[in-house]
Amino acid sequence: MKKIINNIDDIVSEMVHGIVSSYPQKLKILPGTLAIARNDAAFSDDKKVGVVSGGGSGHEPLHSGYVGKGMLCAAVCGQINTSPTPDQIYEAIKYADKGQGVLLIVKNYAGDDMNFDMAKELAEFDDIKVESILVDDDISAADDAEDTQGKRGVAGTVLVEKICGAAAEQGMELHELAQLGQRVINNTKTVAVALSAATVPAVGHPGFELDDDQMEYGVGIHNERGFSTEKIAPSKQIAEELINKILKSYDHNTGDYAVLVNGLGSTPLMEQFVFANDVLNLLKEKGIKVSFTKVGNKVTAIDMHGISLTLMKLENNWIEYLEAPTDAISW
Amino acid sequence: MKKIINNIDDIVSEMVHGIVSSYPQKLKILPGTLAIARNDAAFSDDKKVGVVSGGGSGHEPLHSGYVGKGMLCAAVCGQINTSPTPDQIYEAIKYADKGQGVLLIVKNYAGDDMNFDMAKELAEFDDIKVESILVDDDISAADDAEDTQGKRGVAGTVLVEKICGAAAEQGMELHELAQLGQRVINNTKTVAVALSAATVPAVGHPGFELDDDQMEYGVGIHNERGFSTEKIAPSKQIAEELINKILKSYDHNTGDYAVLVNGLGSTPLMEQFVFANDVLNLLKEKGIKVSFTKVGNKVTAIDMHGISLTLMKLENNWIEYLEAPTDAISW
Repeated sequence: MKKIINNIDDIVSEMVHGIVSSYPQKLKILPGTLAIARNDAAFSDDKKVGVVSGGGSGHEPLHSGYVGKGMLCAAVCGQINTSPTPDQIYEAIKYADKGQGVLLIVKNYAGDDMNFDMAKELAEFDDIKVESILVDDDISAADDAEDTQGKRGVAGTVLVEKICGAAAEQGMELHELAQLGQRVINNTKTVAVALSAATVPAVGHPGFELDDDQMEYGVGIHNERGFSTEKIAPSKQIAEELINKILKSYDHNTGDYAVLVNGLGSTPLMEQFVFANDVLNLLKEKGIKVSFTKVGNKVTAIDMHGISLTLMKLENNWIEYLEAPTDAISW
Repeated sequence: MKKIINNIDDIVSEMVHGIVSSYPQKLKILPGTLAIARNDAAFSDDKKVGVVSGGGSGHEPLHSGYVGKGMLCAAVCGQINTSPTPDQIYEAIKYADKGQGVLLIVKNYAGDDMNFDMAKELAEFDDIKVESILVDDDISAADDAEDTQGKRGVAGTVLVEKICGAAAEQGMELHELAQLGQRVINNTKTVAVALSAATVPAVGHPGFELDDDQMEYGVGIHNERGFSTEKIAPSKQIAEELINKILKSYDHNTGDYAVLVNGLGSTPLMEQFVFANDVLNLLKEKGIKVSFTKVGNKVTAIDMHGISLTLMKLENNWIEYLEAPTDAISW
């Protein structure tokens, strides 16, 4: 295992300190936690609904890179691939609450679901209004799959965070914000492909092995295996496969879409843009209108070599929320 | 070789088309070239000095990701690790010129130097005022090294592009802008370390081999070997080594600095922020004041696993140029 680190046990703490030390005008650590929160002057005068997310580390820039005016108020960082603890999430909720309540954006994994729920209960004892939404955009994991509790929350999470963050910034109240978030989640679908698995530092070797000419469709962001191991195909063929799988999952696939092409950690931008070119050409051929596109390492799986494609069917003024300004360092 | 591509010969063209198709409101391709240029409404009314850069592909997001209001007017994309041709650079100069002239920001490699010079001559026949500056921030290549024409232009280039782009946006005239750029270059120093080399697609294997426990100090962004192959050290020790080498290269190393921690392509953000934490702690211990920090994949070497550290000694109001807004997608 080759990594630029010190002690394995200190990686998350050192990373979190590295993030806030690099951007001290924007970010700070909440005392006694590994939660990263807004530190900009505008936040102290805020009277808006707070938006909080978090989860296991290893998916950077998710979630810490999305803390800032117009996105998240705080991101709670768990250990690698491990949910943050309820007490730390509770601290983030207290920090984010300005009397208007707090929306929790939670990826659909058992540990996250449970711990965010416990934090929500703790906050409710304090009379803080809290609502939460579960992101489950990964359509490669069937709802009844044995090794998951349903569809996983993956790259689409960043689009949910952007839209909810922008709507909160524009003054939307808590219950309406939760409804908006749920509607966005329903319209957001992701499938990934990997050429190689991630190496979790404490494990020391890749989570699964693929031959030199193999790739795997449908992987998750914690080295979850996918639905099919195949020979590496050209980018255009991969794009066709992912698009068809995603479009089939919508009841009606006409309309206007946002596209996210996401690198999973060690995939060069060169490959991501070659793939984006294929995706956008194929969608055009199919008569699908794309009004917003983003390409880059947005939700990663440590050093996995691979890519995910997310489509989101746009409604109402969502495009304005996607295009609204934000101070978050990694949007 | 595992890559998400189609035909090797089409990678750069497909990537360039992917970039502009993903961000059509901001970017376009100049006809008949692989030059990416500003396509925003503000540009057509511009009466400012144009700033143009470019070079071989494989270093994304450099330079294309830095095209936008407040940074570059155009970025000319050569084939992988190959300078763009003079005719394409000439087209970019003509597009960028609004009667106030054009500044060329060129990385210090023989091919780039020659081709940008030829393009400058072509533009001068058209009575376009052109000045150019050569970025040579990589202090690991000695001025008299046999295999280079001196110090190479590497990650520091993005800081030069940001400062010059912001100054041009604020109305600085051409000659003053070139002087500013040269002064920034003189104050900018970079050293890199690699845990593994990049695989150029047409070559099909890594440019050099390191053992499983080895790293190399002083590599370039085209798989140029460095000055020392050693056992992989902890992040903190690597940080100490790079900082000391850079600080020694300044005549006077007191003052106020900007820091860029740059991933070389396949390095997870987790490692980059662990390293940034070490760098910022060590600089603090040494009494060096840091007023600006940026961390991320800013100037890459395809899929090289490694990191570079850039320090820039700040003068005058440079910090304001670094912090000025820009529409560029990857700053």
